[in-house]
Amino acid sequence: MRLTVYLAGEIHSTWREEIKKKSLALDLPIDFVGPMENHDRSDNIGEEILGEQPNAVFKDAAASSFNNLRTGVLMQKADLVIALFGEQYKQWNTAMDASSALASGKPVILIRPGKLHHPLKELSQKANATVETVDQAIKALAYIVE
Amino acid sequence: MRLTVYLAGEIHSTWREEIKKKSLALDLPIDFVGPMENHDRSDNIGEEILGEQPNAVFKDAAASSFNNLRTGVLMQKADLVIALFGEQYKQWNTAMDASSALASGKPVILIRPGKLHHPLKELSQKANATVETVDQAIKALAYIVE
Amino acid sequence: MRLTVYLAGEIHSTWREEIKKKSLALDLPIDFVGPMENHDRSDNIGEEILGEQPNAVFKDAAASSFNNLRTGVLMQKADLVIALFGEQYKQWNTAMDASSALASGKPVILIRPGKLHHPLKELSQKANATVETVDQAIKALAYIVE
Amino acid sequence: MRLTVYLAGEIHSTWREEIKKKSLALDLPIDFVGPMENHDRSDNIGEEILGEQPNAVFKDAAASSFNNLRTGVLMQKADLVIALFGEQYKQWNTAMDASSALASGKPVILIRPGKLHHPLKELSQKANATVETVDQAIKALAYIVE
Amino acid sequence: MRLTVYLAGEIHSTWREEIKKKSLALDLPIDFVGPMENHDRSDNIGEEILGEQPNAVFKDAAASSFNNLRTGVLMQKADLVIALFGEQYKQWNTAMDASSALASGKPVILIRPGKLHHPLKELSQKANATVETVDQAIKALAYIVE
Amino acid sequence: MRLTVYLAGEIHSTWREEIKKKSLALDLPIDFVGPMENHDRSDNIGEEILGEQPNAVFKDAAASSFNNLRTGVLMQKADLVIALFGEQYKQWNTAMDASSALASGKPVILIRPGKLHHPLKELSQKANATVETVDQAIKALAYIVE
Amino acid sequence: MRLTVYLAGEIHSTWREEIKKKSLALDLPIDFVGPMENHDRSDNIGEEILGEQPNAVFKDAAASSFNNLRTGVLMQKADLVIALFGEQYKQWNTAMDASSALASGKPVILIRPGKLHHPLKELSQKANATVETVDQAIKALAYIVE
Amino acid sequence: MRLTVYLAGEIHSTWREEIKKKSLALDLPIDFVGPMENHDRSDNIGEEILGEQPNAVFKDAAASSFNNLRTGVLMQKADLVIALFGEQYKQWNTAMDASSALASGKPVILIRPGKLHHPLKELSQKANATVETVDQAIKALAYIVE
Repeated sequence: MRLTVYLAGEIHSTWREEIKKKSLALDLPIDFVGPMENHDRSDNIGEEILGEQPNAVFKDAAASSFNNLRTGVLMQKADLVIALFGEQYKQWNTAMDASSALASGKPVILIRPGKLHHPLKELSQKANATVETVDQAIKALAYIVE
Repeated sequence: MRLTVYLAGEIHSTWREEIKKKSLALDLPIDFVGPMENHDRSDNIGEEILGEQPNAVFKDAAASSFNNLRTGVLMQKADLVIALFGEQYKQWNTAMDASSALASGKPVILIRPGKLHHPLKELSQKANATVETVDQAIKALAYIVE
Repeated sequence: MRLTVYLAGEIHSTWREEIKKKSLALDLPIDFVGPMENHDRSDNIGEEILGEQPNAVFKDAAASSFNNLRTGVLMQKADLVIALFGEQYKQWNTAMDASSALASGKPVILIRPGKLHHPLKELSQKANATVETVDQAIKALAYIVE
Repeated sequence: MRLTVYLAGEIHSTWREEIKKKSLALDLPIDFVGPMENHDRSDNIGEEILGEQPNAVFKDAAASSFNNLRTGVLMQKADLVIALFGEQYKQWNTAMDASSALASGKPVILIRPGKLHHPLKELSQKANATVETVDQAIKALAYIVE
Repeated sequence: MRLTVYLAGEIHSTWREEIKKKSLALDLPIDFVGPMENHDRSDNIGEEILGEQPNAVFKDAAASSFNNLRTGVLMQKADLVIALFGEQYKQWNTAMDASSALASGKPVILIRPGKLHHPLKELSQKANATVETVDQAIKALAYIVE
Repeated sequence: MRLTVYLAGEIHSTWREEIKKKSLALDLPIDFVGPMENHDRSDNIGEEILGEQPNAVFKDAAASSFNNLRTGVLMQKADLVIALFGEQYKQWNTAMDASSALASGKPVILIRPGKLHHPLKELSQKANATVETVDQAIKALAYIVE
Repeated sequence: MRLTVYLAGEIHSTWREEIKKKSLALDLPIDFVGPMENHDRSDNIGEEILGEQPNAVFKDAAASSFNNLRTGVLMQKADLVIALFGEQYKQWNTAMDASSALASGKPVILIRPGKLHHPLKELSQKANATVETVDQAIKALAYIVE
Repeated sequence: MRLTVYLAGEIHSTWREEIKKKSLALDLPIDFVGPMENHDRSDNIGEEILGEQPNAVFKDAAASSFNNLRTGVLMQKADLVIALFGEQYKQWNTAMDASSALASGKPVILIRPGKLHHPLKELSQKANATVETVDQAIKALAYIVE
């Protein structure tokens, strides 16, 4: 049995690489999917496909349709979602991805630094499990497939 | 036919009162529900019911269970959700409420200032409609029941 | 027991008035809901609420978000959908409304002139019943509540 | 990870072959399914299986039951639906397939020429993404599996 | 709290009247709905609405579309289904109604004479409760609302 | 807005009366439903309706079909479930009722004495909120409708 | 792409073998599953596993639980159900299997001799397609995977 | 066709090993999954991953989040659940796992000693089949894949 895990959250740091490497090192039977990690490409994908849009709002609207399309297809393939919140950025799409997964019955592990406990308390209470670090999330993954 | 609308979003300003007054002025057949708007009570409800918790994280965990319970019961009663994002606060529970509603098939109107279009682009693309002001949301409500 | 029926289809003729009158004449315990029937208002509602859009496509996109919002809320209230196809117009939103209703388990009566049987054959086969006239649809409604 | 994509829409042109070739050229991990593309066979399948029917309407009814059966089985296998609207034909079954997919949670890419934006505005607003050409749809597919 | 009960099963005897009378006598807070009980009308409804059909099979097809429409609308309103099997007739639509209800989560009481236990054993095992007489079904209804 | 609350759990003490009285004293807009509280009647209902069964196991099987029927109908009417675990009895049907509610999206408040925290830890983690006393549950109900 | 087809219906004739042979001859990519075809074993499986039961009704109840278990597991694996009605036997479990499949969104092909059109009219109208012979069902299967 | 079976229930005896061995001996095409069977590890997993918790209740809460996460992921992969009740322990999580499976449409075989029939009567009535021994459960599994 192999699992597919969707990695939701910020695309400015290398946390996905860290999870993949550590999962590989432990030989966990897990495949990872996630959003476009090239930030510029993610922001520009609407205009790349549809051509120039009238202004920044419409450029964003176009980009988000392809980003949501990608997330929609890949998350349906996932057995589990890991959503990481960091200390920067609004991260509302991370909250959206985690909540969408929960609402459709997909288990979710939340990773967030302890200092974010207050604003994330409602989402954390809904998530299946909340941890603070990538290493703890790896332990949780390992526990599932042990 | 009367509609029930859940008003998700920040509890620090008076936008809910504004919506209710304007809806009443237009005689819209709409009942409004929403989260606990007394911020202190919302933060303390866990300890108020369960007694003192070991630390701030557990106090938050306790409070969020009752806040999510309230949201869960009332949102099931709602025909429509309005989610308002302002310029302050993390507002991850607002993103969570809007996404939960969308994932379970409930129509959502997003209210957000134009300057927040970028971080909200994915959620906005999923919402049924996005507006910038309470007045525009009222027009949308009026259009539904016209 | 009262029923709520959503009347999907073209907004250029008076077929909804005809159904409502005939239902009233028969004293059927049925309330009717449906799309905005003022065509100009339906086309302009996006700009009425959000202000002028960059071009006709974006004006349409804005309008459709409020039209779909209205349909989404009202169709959830409906026990039954009647979808009428006439000989003019593309009527893809009528096909969309009928299919959405069927896919979510709501019974659908299709009204279409006999000469449209070929292009509507797949949708007709999925609908619960297909008739050719408003009078036949009224007989079907009367049969349900008899 | 391989994806299965259902190609809904007109069967009179070669757009499906174009998509398949371009997907192959890009080595995308995608399998394509779709409706019977032999138009005569699609129209006659009812009588081919059940024998002669009383008239054209019943011939259509018989054919549509097998066409819907095929679509029902294959669309359940699909991770994503691409629906193409051209400038000819009624294409109500295309609208039906796209709407059925959306209503059951399957992501949909709409392809339509710009000049059809008005009659397709409601369906376009519901679709995950709307593009104008097969090449743009291929870029969207490539973005998902990138 | 009032309940709505759908009475599925044969329309040749007066068992529905018996249930309604006994429920009334016990003052149970229950409303009853069910299929068209005028057998001729049920068989002819297709031709009554759509006009003469080519032959008996098509007459049946037309009638069944309106019978299924009625059942679909009324069963969605029901909190509970009672399905009665007698010793005559094929009663496949009774089995269909009971199974549809069960598959969509509606509780079902089966009434069948003891001698039919063998051919009904699989359906009986799926039903919430199986009884042999109308009086026993009334006792079960009374137990629910006691 | 009135809420309906299903009270799952042991039928040997008077906790339901206590909840109802306290809810009434606070004028909460809540109606309560629940299982048959007459223990003998609950155990004997199978034989009361169906007559004597071959042995104790079959007597139990018969009774449980009517008890589950009642629970199924009433729980579908509930907006919220309160499940109380005491220190006596196996209470597996209480765990079943709470889990069934959770699995079908109904919010659940768990009441259990602190000393039962260990064996109830998995169910408690799934419940929306866990409290120790009827008074705390009343506070939670009051918080929802405040 | 391979399909799994559940073959519901009578177990007294060799129609399943006929379908399997003809499918194999056409090299259709289809795997077939279905109920226990050894009639005695199907009737006795309850007592074989649980030991002697008090009487024929309880023997049937025991057997049906294992037959329904088998059907439940295998039908979940099926992409399509073929339900055959013959001229003998009550065949209520066939109607149950077909209706359960339809209610849970699985496509169904009905096979029934023309003379059974009247009692099967409602089920036939709900099925995706109705044919009269195994050969016609094979043609329908071939059309799906063509 | 291979099946995946989730083995819910007590982790203090070797019943899972017995089932796996007997399934292997019969060459049944079945893979088994289940909860963490190392009792200490199951109780301590919360603190192992998250560090020391304030007290026993919070230690339990932390552990249960990872245990429920594991169960959630693995049960979604299962085609069938076997839930074993023994004579010791509260086993409320076993009742929860069985009920969650039933509520989400997964077939369940209950294994329980005859003497537990009374407290398990409601859950037994909901389960697809109830047996008394591991050997009987193996016979049921063999019957499914026969």
